[in-house]
Amino acid sequence: MKDKELFEASLKVRSYECDSYGHVNNAVYLNYLEYGRVELLGEKGLSLERIKKKGVFIVIRRVEIDYKAAAREGDELVVRTYLKGHTKMKGVFCQEILKKSDHTVVAKADVTWVFTNLNGRLVPIPEFFRDALGL
Amino acid sequence: MKDKELFEASLKVRSYECDSYGHVNNAVYLNYLEYGRVELLGEKGLSLERIKKKGVFIVIRRVEIDYKAAAREGDELVVRTYLKGHTKMKGVFCQEILKKSDHTVVAKADVTWVFTNLNGRLVPIPEFFRDALGL
Amino acid sequence: MKDKELFEASLKVRSYECDSYGHVNNAVYLNYLEYGRVELLGEKGLSLERIKKKGVFIVIRRVEIDYKAAAREGDELVVRTYLKGHTKMKGVFCQEILKKSDHTVVAKADVTWVFTNLNGRLVPIPEFFRDALGL
Amino acid sequence: MKDKELFEASLKVRSYECDSYGHVNNAVYLNYLEYGRVELLGEKGLSLERIKKKGVFIVIRRVEIDYKAAAREGDELVVRTYLKGHTKMKGVFCQEILKKSDHTVVAKADVTWVFTNLNGRLVPIPEFFRDALGL
Repeated sequence: MKDKELFEASLKVRSYECDSYGHVNNAVYLNYLEYGRVELLGEKGLSLERIKKKGVFIVIRRVEIDYKAAAREGDELVVRTYLKGHTKMKGVFCQEILKKSDHTVVAKADVTWVFTNLNGRLVPIPEFFRDALGL
Repeated sequence: MKDKELFEASLKVRSYECDSYGHVNNAVYLNYLEYGRVELLGEKGLSLERIKKKGVFIVIRRVEIDYKAAAREGDELVVRTYLKGHTKMKGVFCQEILKKSDHTVVAKADVTWVFTNLNGRLVPIPEFFRDALGL
Repeated sequence: MKDKELFEASLKVRSYECDSYGHVNNAVYLNYLEYGRVELLGEKGLSLERIKKKGVFIVIRRVEIDYKAAAREGDELVVRTYLKGHTKMKGVFCQEILKKSDHTVVAKADVTWVFTNLNGRLVPIPEFFRDALGL
Repeated sequence: MKDKELFEASLKVRSYECDSYGHVNNAVYLNYLEYGRVELLGEKGLSLERIKKKGVFIVIRRVEIDYKAAAREGDELVVRTYLKGHTKMKGVFCQEILKKSDHTVVAKADVTWVFTNLNGRLVPIPEFFRDALGL
């Protein structure tokens, strides 16, 4: 993946994702972001299944999320994801959630991830992963 | 576990478990029931970890749940679980969710479970499991 | 809606809906069923918003669900819903969740619903609702 | 609430909150943080119900969360919350999630919140809220 290559995943807000205000619950946006990342990785041949079989875990280290507008049941959303940067040991995805109808930005996040082995020890970003993303 | 031996687990309804009506979402009650079963099994030395290590899965086959009253954020609930019956191949837990304050029954369920091996094939209830529950 | 008229809603299993077995968690299927019903009702002009504005709640009274096969992350599923029957006071939706790829039945459920007013008192199925569904 | 006054809420990780790695899912920690805040506010007489009745919403604007260690099914956790700072228009809670057993820090977050009226327009932190927290 070249820097700034943008990946989009679509979804529709479901009734049970909304809280008693009728708004999508704050934690649910992290689910949406995960969905966007998993779709991107799947597109690159990096299913969670395959990553696990390689003997490593991809682990989220930090999330900074700004909530900009409320989404509600039935809203069609797009999750945009691109690779903001990376070092040997970690990478950062920049992700945005927008309303399909009018492109209102609902939330914006930077998500930092690392790799560990099965014992939870930090390891560099694996070769197969760098290759698949073109890092 | 002798038949009718009753196990109780307590919990408090959390804000994010409520839907836009301000009521606990229907699916969340299944989470509560699972919590009640896991607590009961843990009490008997049957952690999910241990069951997995034995090379089997405990799998839910059927749930019949009646919703009797609404629970809301902050409500203190009790999940009551007892073994209603069992054969060589399956068992049924009867579970009730009540409000701690006035014993209103919120939901009542029969939950049928079986065991499979790691390939998903049905197996009889394993020895170690029968022993732990006194079946 | 004439009896047996079938409504289909599609979805894809998301990573965070799977438990430590890698299977969709039992409670999540109830979310999928709710999604199927909300889509059907939306199609008929019966958004939850509109129902609420009419001063009534649609409330689930009973769910009987049989789990037939496991679904996993990435599986494409279809939720099929049709009205199985109704009286003045309640209705029953029959719902099936299938894998899109090979039509494996993942789960099958009967879902009984009623209406209440805003104080939680049972009321007959409202006129506007019967009309929209052709009951 | 005087600055640095610390509030603690306890919880136990439930099976259905864990993902296919057997770890608590990232989004679930935001649920735990919400639980910690709701418990703190409840302690001060600020139930979500009461806040809503005052004609305002408390809305999360930004979350920065660092994931430090993995929690697993059955882990006993503590959510520590204190007010880090506030202006007329917003406040920041600092929250930590720790394992009860050995005080391992599982996650650490800064959570920024604001108030809106029922139309979603920003309003200053209301009087009754400042009073209850001693701001």
